[in-house]
Amino acid sequence: MERAALGIDIGGTSIKFGIVSPEGRLIRHHSLITKSNRDDIIATIKSGAREFLGSKHIDEYNIEHIGMGSPGAVNVESGVMFGVSANIPGWSGTNLKEIVREFGLPTHVDNDANAALCGELSVGAGRNYEHVIYVTIGTGVGGGIAIDNKVHHGANYSASEIGHTIIHRNGRKCGCGKRGCMEQYASVTGMMKTAKAILMKKQTGALWKLCDGQIEDLKPEDVTREFVNGDPAAVEIIERQASALAEGIAPAISLLNPELLIIGGAITDAGQEYFKALTDKIGKSAYPESHEKMRVVKAKLGGKAGVVGAAFLRWV
Amino acid sequence: MERAALGIDIGGTSIKFGIVSPEGRLIRHHSLITKSNRDDIIATIKSGAREFLGSKHIDEYNIEHIGMGSPGAVNVESGVMFGVSANIPGWSGTNLKEIVREFGLPTHVDNDANAALCGELSVGAGRNYEHVIYVTIGTGVGGGIAIDNKVHHGANYSASEIGHTIIHRNGRKCGCGKRGCMEQYASVTGMMKTAKAILMKKQTGALWKLCDGQIEDLKPEDVTREFVNGDPAAVEIIERQASALAEGIAPAISLLNPELLIIGGAITDAGQEYFKALTDKIGKSAYPESHEKMRVVKAKLGGKAGVVGAAFLRWV
Repeated sequence: MERAALGIDIGGTSIKFGIVSPEGRLIRHHSLITKSNRDDIIATIKSGAREFLGSKHIDEYNIEHIGMGSPGAVNVESGVMFGVSANIPGWSGTNLKEIVREFGLPTHVDNDANAALCGELSVGAGRNYEHVIYVTIGTGVGGGIAIDNKVHHGANYSASEIGHTIIHRNGRKCGCGKRGCMEQYASVTGMMKTAKAILMKKQTGALWKLCDGQIEDLKPEDVTREFVNGDPAAVEIIERQASALAEGIAPAISLLNPELLIIGGAITDAGQEYFKALTDKIGKSAYPESHEKMRVVKAKLGGKAGVVGAAFLRWV
Repeated sequence: MERAALGIDIGGTSIKFGIVSPEGRLIRHHSLITKSNRDDIIATIKSGAREFLGSKHIDEYNIEHIGMGSPGAVNVESGVMFGVSANIPGWSGTNLKEIVREFGLPTHVDNDANAALCGELSVGAGRNYEHVIYVTIGTGVGGGIAIDNKVHHGANYSASEIGHTIIHRNGRKCGCGKRGCMEQYASVTGMMKTAKAILMKKQTGALWKLCDGQIEDLKPEDVTREFVNGDPAAVEIIERQASALAEGIAPAISLLNPELLIIGGAITDAGQEYFKALTDKIGKSAYPESHEKMRVVKAKLGGKAGVVGAAFLRWV
């Protein structure tokens, strides 16, 4: 029987499941839509896991453990969620390990960004690196840090809040209660707010034409595509996103002196020009020697990062 | 024979030497004035070390190793200084281990703030803590971080540049080439610049009377003392220093989720009110859960931190 693990990637709108090999191969996977509340998510996790673990299709695999990644802060020992998990009402207090106890498998849990970082360290862009900062650009900005090739959790599992570096005094209001957090400018949500402001002012160019003035209809991928095509408005939007990200990451770089910065999320579709701009802007904000040997690269696991990474919470 | 080590604390104007016991006792110590250039500093280190290691007074001690702390970035493996060491012209390229090779003892070197952190972790305020941020307020702002009770050096020995978090866009010019670094406001030098601006505007109060309008004559200890006495100008000066420090440290706290923040330097003479103000301001800038369990304390080793910490580069 081949060795494998079940990785579960919990989100506010869908749960992803995958049977993963120790080499990082996603042998089998599926995704279930869920409502964004505690009971529905728990029921969806149970039924999705049963589908795999009870199925004859996986008889050829020896499932060694279950790994789960969830948005929000989680006590990785007890499995209990705590603090505020913005997208899932009532999620705090839930014991993730308890949900899958019926399967009798060793279970490992972590924050979703830490899980993705685990995947990148084990079978992705972070292989053979010791000191790594991982940032993923989505609805918010998620972060994970590895020191000596080990994910750092901090005193009470609340480390890596890289999105909440304040970059604009009295700036946009953030869900954390403060103002001007990097996340409000560098996340996809933040970028689309910037896009609106810029397009309303310019009212010209490919991006403007594309949405015919209905800015709400624009998708983030329209912005990255038109950035690649050189549309001036799209260039300004992406440059601003890169500036915000660089300013927010700079203190972390000056502090940790990492070898590698991994960027995840659809923003990386903006390609090499984006990475050049980002690297340049980091140079303007971080302490010179702290990023001298640092490479800035794109996450390798893409959309599979959550599921594959969750499986590697144990194998890493 | 009792076990001991020789700790050497290198500075731009004086070199401190100490025979230190494994319990952190400073058995014997002295300090030599030096000119701030490479050759003089090297000669002073050699003669100061000879004085101790050749002396009959230390026949009763078995000196197990030499530890050296120096301002600036140092390759802790090779012992070679690199980058810009602001206060010592020509210091970059110097091999610290080479200077004391004649004594035939194992030699361990590090940045001075990291050495002081080692001392605090071993026999000071950081005992029994795993995740620690250490900040020392002097001419500049020095920093050190411990993860899993180990000093973190980063990819090329350039970690912990906590003083160079940008807190004011287009702010005061910094030696690192950027503008608005926290160090420019939270260091003693920065604080005295703020003092000048505030006193010139107020032109009243105990601090103003003390210097009779000659602000250049004011000493930092005058400011901390009058802060304790409640002089409004001194309170404003120290509050601004605390705000700058809090804003500069906040991203490090949100990133590392430490258990302990140790503050060193004469600013800590401002006492409990200062620590209360600092803790309060950190709460306004750092991510809520990241400092929930964090204690903010005064460094314990004081002026001995450099020498004692250097000795503990090995014993730690």
